Amino acid sequence: MRKQKPVAESFVRMTELVLPNDTNTLNNLMGGRMMHLMDIAAAISAQRHSNRIVVTASVDNVSFREGIKLGNVVTLEAQVTRAFSSSMEVHINVWSEDIPSGTKFKSNEAFFTFVAVDQSGRPIDVPEAVPNTEEEIRLYDGALRRRQLRLVLAGRMKPQEATELKALFEME
Amino acid sequence: MRKQKPVAESFVRMTELVLPNDTNTLNNLMGGRMMHLMDIAAAISAQRHSNRIVVTASVDNVSFREGIKLGNVVTLEAQVTRAFSSSMEVHINVWSEDIPSGTKFKSNEAFFTFVAVDQSGRPIDVPEAVPNTEEEIRLYDGALRRRQLRLVLAGRMKPQEATELKALFEME
Amino acid sequence: MRKQKPVAESFVRMTELVLPNDTNTLNNLMGGRMMHLMDIAAAISAQRHSNRIVVTASVDNVSFREGIKLGNVVTLEAQVTRAFSSSMEVHINVWSEDIPSGTKFKSNEAFFTFVAVDQSGRPIDVPEAVPNTEEEIRLYDGALRRRQLRLVLAGRMKPQEATELKALFEME
Amino acid sequence: MRKQKPVAESFVRMTELVLPNDTNTLNNLMGGRMMHLMDIAAAISAQRHSNRIVVTASVDNVSFREGIKLGNVVTLEAQVTRAFSSSMEVHINVWSEDIPSGTKFKSNEAFFTFVAVDQSGRPIDVPEAVPNTEEEIRLYDGALRRRQLRLVLAGRMKPQEATELKALFEME
Amino acid sequence: MRKQKPVAESFVRMTELVLPNDTNTLNNLMGGRMMHLMDIAAAISAQRHSNRIVVTASVDNVSFREGIKLGNVVTLEAQVTRAFSSSMEVHINVWSEDIPSGTKFKSNEAFFTFVAVDQSGRPIDVPEAVPNTEEEIRLYDGALRRRQLRLVLAGRMKPQEATELKALFEME
Amino acid sequence: MRKQKPVAESFVRMTELVLPNDTNTLNNLMGGRMMHLMDIAAAISAQRHSNRIVVTASVDNVSFREGIKLGNVVTLEAQVTRAFSSSMEVHINVWSEDIPSGTKFKSNEAFFTFVAVDQSGRPIDVPEAVPNTEEEIRLYDGALRRRQLRLVLAGRMKPQEATELKALFEME
Repeated sequence: MRKQKPVAESFVRMTELVLPNDTNTLNNLMGGRMMHLMDIAAAISAQRHSNRIVVTASVDNVSFREGIKLGNVVTLEAQVTRAFSSSMEVHINVWSEDIPSGTKFKSNEAFFTFVAVDQSGRPIDVPEAVPNTEEEIRLYDGALRRRQLRLVLAGRMKPQEATELKALFEME
Repeated sequence: MRKQKPVAESFVRMTELVLPNDTNTLNNLMGGRMMHLMDIAAAISAQRHSNRIVVTASVDNVSFREGIKLGNVVTLEAQVTRAFSSSMEVHINVWSEDIPSGTKFKSNEAFFTFVAVDQSGRPIDVPEAVPNTEEEIRLYDGALRRRQLRLVLAGRMKPQEATELKALFEME
Repeated sequence: MRKQKPVAESFVRMTELVLPNDTNTLNNLMGGRMMHLMDIAAAISAQRHSNRIVVTASVDNVSFREGIKLGNVVTLEAQVTRAFSSSMEVHINVWSEDIPSGTKFKSNEAFFTFVAVDQSGRPIDVPEAVPNTEEEIRLYDGALRRRQLRLVLAGRMKPQEATELKALFEME
Repeated sequence: MRKQKPVAESFVRMTELVLPNDTNTLNNLMGGRMMHLMDIAAAISAQRHSNRIVVTASVDNVSFREGIKLGNVVTLEAQVTRAFSSSMEVHINVWSEDIPSGTKFKSNEAFFTFVAVDQSGRPIDVPEAVPNTEEEIRLYDGALRRRQLRLVLAGRMKPQEATELKALFEME
Repeated sequence: MRKQKPVAESFVRMTELVLPNDTNTLNNLMGGRMMHLMDIAAAISAQRHSNRIVVTASVDNVSFREGIKLGNVVTLEAQVTRAFSSSMEVHINVWSEDIPSGTKFKSNEAFFTFVAVDQSGRPIDVPEAVPNTEEEIRLYDGALRRRQLRLVLAGRMKPQEATELKALFEME
Repeated sequence: MRKQKPVAESFVRMTELVLPNDTNTLNNLMGGRMMHLMDIAAAISAQRHSNRIVVTASVDNVSFREGIKLGNVVTLEAQVTRAFSSSMEVHINVWSEDIPSGTKFKSNEAFFTFVAVDQSGRPIDVPEAVPNTEEEIRLYDGALRRRQLRLVLAGRMKPQEATELKALFEME
């Protein structure tokens, strides 16, 4: 039987300082640099769940709101939501803080998917991810729908077959 | 009347060499670093269309297939597909080449959205983006549907109201 | 009266992946890069306590034991131990993990001192740091002795006047 | 018999320009980046003495005084003071210069210890370090006392046994 | 017979954003960073012609005119001009653009020479480079003269033997 | 009268460790990174002579011989050879060392030219550079000839007018 592991064991918190080279000419953190940080935090989380080398398989829609300034502190929290055979979905929340002015806001939220691989880069099975808290269960349940969306967007599933997803768009 | 500008004027080609610090322990380009490059190429394209400073507003689903190796050459091509009042959708294609072995493959495709801002960071209107070739028109037409998907995913539009998108999921 | 703040509010956890450029020709994390990471984590902790810009004033003896490998995950935890008028001592623990092989060990422990400054770089007072747990109290109590050692090492206090420190070296 | 080598042969001078990414929001060189530079200069010096790969074993107390600005030139001078079986103590002096304004000051002084290792990372003996000038002899003589302090601070020697060190704290 | 290849197949366009760490205290791109970019673009071009790993053999005189600012976009275009047995000369043009202000100027032009090597670093023959357009032929023809200049400057040819070059300096 | 300054006062020695990100897939230092280091060392030398901010004006032909490996130590020595009104020619020698194997060789030699500028970027006069040793006088004397070559190569002087240079190519 497949090994089971609580999702909470994959929790990662990463704290970063926004440095000059991370910013554009408005002194705001560039979106691409933020995604770079999110990818590292999420990859460590997927590593913790699988105890394997992992490679990024996909990133779901990420949106950027208020600007994050040079010198701000960015806190990323990543945790696996659900595992499929060799892939894992990771949920990431990002907060941005200007500590001297005492302001803090949630700046991003995203889902990354990773595949666990062996030393020659071949996919390899990972433990089942077991949710426990209410929030973990909510994220676990939504993972199937997000997965269908990824397959539809990648052209590997027909929209009409994405039953989980379709329900969303139907009128009663 | 709003200024018009052919989308082809925003075309950007960026060529990059995969360096050691861009790679993981399998010597593969990390997903986060790839997104960082895509964001820079797409931002330059949006700058070319708007002649403005631009900030990343969102990134649509990106998927990663085959590994890209240390020493490979990555070519990114970005072009605006459509402009809304102050925002622009940019389409990016990425190819990866191992020149000594003569292999080349398309590794990624994605849509980024940018907002043009003035010096104080406030959104500012951009020219209308005019498609000309068949491919440009196809991308222009799909922009509305992708925009609805972004709004639904960001919780700013109800799935039932996303008429463009809904059509996709309906059976006949 | 001077504001009081629990030391626990300054807690920071930072997680980092060891990248190629951080390593020497044995593929081990270089000591200088580790100190760079420790300085950033500790500075964020001192910022959290003081809500000010902070500058590094001193670093106490740091020792390095087992090598930390390329691809390992380094976790740094920093927390203020005690505040003097405008300076704060921060305690840092560092763990290193090779996740695929399941090994984890404590690699470093150190004390950094920071000074809070205003926008023109002048020292400015910080809240008093209040310890609560037994461990926090132990670190708070030792701060005086470590401070005397710093002053003696910097040639700003005569060894004979370092009463806290002297006690250590006396025989009964 | 163990090979002998004058300490002066390990002399290294390194000159660096302070770049944007090395600085904090006050445009001052960050302490952690300075320690990174000191570690590289000192490691090259220990390499020169031992003709071996070296790894950082410890860093003694470092203190930071005046701020070093963006665009300043930092000059580091490192030289081995004394060698023990496989370890070497290196002394580093750092000066900071604002060339256009003609100001120059000594900004740091520190002692780093390195261990020489073979290709598999095992400690290996190094030549004896022979001091010649008065200053070199002074640093050579003090090395024993600093070594005891490191052992006491690392909890590997009881303060009461650190005879060299104890002398410092005794009243007459 | 030696393989032939049109020079146009080696064309490379690289687009880069000037980031904070690339600039000096006047916020201008540093010359050394520009040469770093030129070397990467030219190396990719030489790789494309030879389908080999290449190493930089020499850089001809490069001059720098107007300052290139932080946030500007730099476009580099590189193409092989002529191949000798295992070496290739690459011509590079660089333009700099301040997109928001709509200014664009040619900032540099240079010739780099690369040698194709096998996996153990030994020089290996490359295809003949065939020029087609008028401009390509002009650059192809000048390559011999530039090569003599390089050999003279490297002290490997006597000025009196550089017949191509000598013609330039002769009076009638 | 124009201020005079011995060229020796502009001497700079810079020591650098070759890190992973500086190397290509053969683990050799890339030519562009070497030029980046040369530019920084030479700029500091020109700053020392002029006590001004300086910008790179041109780089003469640089050639690259043996490969420099990951982990090697690179030593750069730069010194002003001669000053013209606002420009200075700097001579740079580079040595590369593999310390564990005890090999050291001279890897590069080049001439860079810098212009001293004021805070708004306008050229400003610099002190006269006075050579003293035989070698310094030889470099001082050759500066005129190299300057003519630069002007000819930049198309700002006709070859026939480059009298210093022409002499080189004439037969008796």
